[in-house]
Amino acid sequence: MTEPTIADVRAAAQRIGPYVHRTPVLTCTALNAMCGAELFFKCENFQKAGAFKMRGATNAVFSLSREEAAKGVATHSSGNHGAALSRAARCRGVPAYVVMPVNAPEIKKAAVAGYGAEIVFCEPTLQAREEKLAELVGRTGAAFVHPYNDPRVISGQGTAALELCEDIPGLDAVITPVGGGGLLSGTATAVRALSPRTRVVAAEPEQADDAFRSLRAGKIVPAEKPDTIADGLRTSLGSLTFAIIRQHVEEIVTVSEQAIVEAMRHVWERMKIVVEPSAAVPVAALLGRHQRFSAKRIGVILSGGNVDLSRLTYFS
Amino acid sequence: MTEPTIADVRAAAQRIGPYVHRTPVLTCTALNAMCGAELFFKCENFQKAGAFKMRGATNAVFSLSREEAAKGVATHSSGNHGAALSRAARCRGVPAYVVMPVNAPEIKKAAVAGYGAEIVFCEPTLQAREEKLAELVGRTGAAFVHPYNDPRVISGQGTAALELCEDIPGLDAVITPVGGGGLLSGTATAVRALSPRTRVVAAEPEQADDAFRSLRAGKIVPAEKPDTIADGLRTSLGSLTFAIIRQHVEEIVTVSEQAIVEAMRHVWERMKIVVEPSAAVPVAALLGRHQRFSAKRIGVILSGGNVDLSRLTYFS
Repeated sequence: MTEPTIADVRAAAQRIGPYVHRTPVLTCTALNAMCGAELFFKCENFQKAGAFKMRGATNAVFSLSREEAAKGVATHSSGNHGAALSRAARCRGVPAYVVMPVNAPEIKKAAVAGYGAEIVFCEPTLQAREEKLAELVGRTGAAFVHPYNDPRVISGQGTAALELCEDIPGLDAVITPVGGGGLLSGTATAVRALSPRTRVVAAEPEQADDAFRSLRAGKIVPAEKPDTIADGLRTSLGSLTFAIIRQHVEEIVTVSEQAIVEAMRHVWERMKIVVEPSAAVPVAALLGRHQRFSAKRIGVILSGGNVDLSRLTYFS
Repeated sequence: MTEPTIADVRAAAQRIGPYVHRTPVLTCTALNAMCGAELFFKCENFQKAGAFKMRGATNAVFSLSREEAAKGVATHSSGNHGAALSRAARCRGVPAYVVMPVNAPEIKKAAVAGYGAEIVFCEPTLQAREEKLAELVGRTGAAFVHPYNDPRVISGQGTAALELCEDIPGLDAVITPVGGGGLLSGTATAVRALSPRTRVVAAEPEQADDAFRSLRAGKIVPAEKPDTIADGLRTSLGSLTFAIIRQHVEEIVTVSEQAIVEAMRHVWERMKIVVEPSAAVPVAALLGRHQRFSAKRIGVILSGGNVDLSRLTYFS
C-alpha cells in the first residue's frame, strides 16, 4: 500500500461528489469564548449516514472496476464504517456484506440492514471476526474494504479537510479525533499540501491513547482494553495510517472521559447540534485552553452524530 | 393595538437584521420519507439566544424611541422571551428587567442573568407576577414588552416566515407550533401577503389545546391547567394574536405527548440537530401523515433549541 497524495484526495472529491454532502462549516460565539480561540466546525455529523466514514467508503466502492464491484464489498464493523459501506454499495447498486458481532447494538444492525446490506454475525472476538470475513470473501469474491488502513479510504476521508481548507483559508491548525487514524491521516494529507503552515493535531481519549503512545514510541503500540465512551476511537492505528501520521501530525492531545462528556454537552447546548462522543474529543482538547491554541484560528472536524438516543432519559 | 401588516414585517426585518441570524433552511430525506411530504425546516433553534423569540424581542426594543429605550424594557417570562429580551436590550445598551417566579429553572435564570438583565423574583402565581411587574414598571419607567400580544413582537416573529418564503417559493403550507400565538400570527401575516396560496396551519399539544378550542369556539378559551412537555406552549392566546389567527389560520392539529417526544427524537436522530419539545410539535403533526399533507411541500418552523440537558442521562 502506498501513501495517498493530494492528487488522490482531489480525485476522491470528484468521485464521491454525487453521493455525499458538502457539509457546512459552522461557528459558535459561545464556544469561541469558552476556548479562547476562533473555531470553525466542519460538520460531518450532517454527512450522509451521519459520519465522515461515508466519504472513505464511497471512494473505495467507486474506485473498484465494474467487474470487481459486481461481486460486492465486505467489511467488519460494529460502527459507522459498516453503515457507510452499505450505503456506498447501494449507491453503486452492488452487494455489501458486513461482519458484525452478535452482541452489536440493535441500532447499528438496523442501520446496516436499512441500507440493504447482508449482515453476517460472528462471535465477539477478533479471531472469529477475521475468520468469518475471510470465509465470506472466499465464498463471494467481494472486495474487502478496511475501515481505515486503505489508501482509498484515507483519500476519501481527506476530502472533508479539502473542503474545509477551501471554505476557510488561513487556519492556524486543524484538529481531528484519532481512532484507527483514517480521518487524521487523510486530513494530514490534504492540509499539508493545501496549507503548509497549518498545523495538524489530533485528540484522543486518555483511556484509548494508543495513537499518543505510538507517536511517542515511534512504533505502533496497540490499544490495550480501550475503555471510553468515544466508541469510534477504540481501534488502534494501522501500518499505513501510522506512517502518515508519524510524518505529518505534530501532536496528539489526550482528554479525560469527563472532559469528553462535558464537551459533548457544550456542543449540544450551545450549537444545537447532535454530535457523538468521538466528535466531542477535539472540542474537549480545545476546552482545555492549552496555550498553543490561544487566539488561533482552528478548524475542528466534528466526525459524526450517531448517538443511541434510547440512552437518554427524555426518550426512554 | 392594531394588527401588523406585511409592511411592518418588512420593516422589522430591516430593523433586526444586524442583531439576529438569518437562519438556514434544512431538509432531511429520512423525515420526508417518514412524513410522506417534502419538508423545509426553518431552523430557529440556531437563532441567537436559541429561539425565534429573539426576533420579536429585538424588533420591540429597537422600535422604541431613544428616550423610551433609555429607561429600559421589562417583561415577565420564565422562558425564551425573557432571555431574548435581555439580549435585545444588551444589543441596544439599555437596561432590562425580567420578572421570574422564584422556582424558575436555574438554567433559565442563568441565561437571563448572563445577558446582563436584572431578575426580579416573584411568587409563582399570576397575581404576584403582574403586581411585581406593575410595581417595577412604575418605579423604573421601563417599557413593558409582552411575550406575544404586541404588534411589534408579532411583526418580528413574522420575519422567520418572510425569510422562509424568500428562500423556498411555492410552499403548499407552512406549519408552526402555537402557544400564545406570536409566532403563528406573525407567520400568518407574512405568508398571507407573500404567498397567498400557501396554507398556514398550526400544531398544538392535546394537553394544552386552548388555541384549538378557541378557534372552534370563535372566542378565546384560556388554557386550563396545561400539562405538556412542550413548555413553550403552555400559554393562552392573546386578544391580538387570536384576531389574526382567526382570520388567517386554516387549521390547528393537536398531538399527544408521546407523539411530541417521538418527533423530537426523530429530529435529533435523523437531522442531528437539537430542538426543544415545543419545536417538535409541528413535526409530530406531520408524522401523523394526515392525508392533507401528503406529497405536499411544507415549511416547518423549528421554533427553538433550548433544552435543559441536565435531564438527559448522558449528562447527569
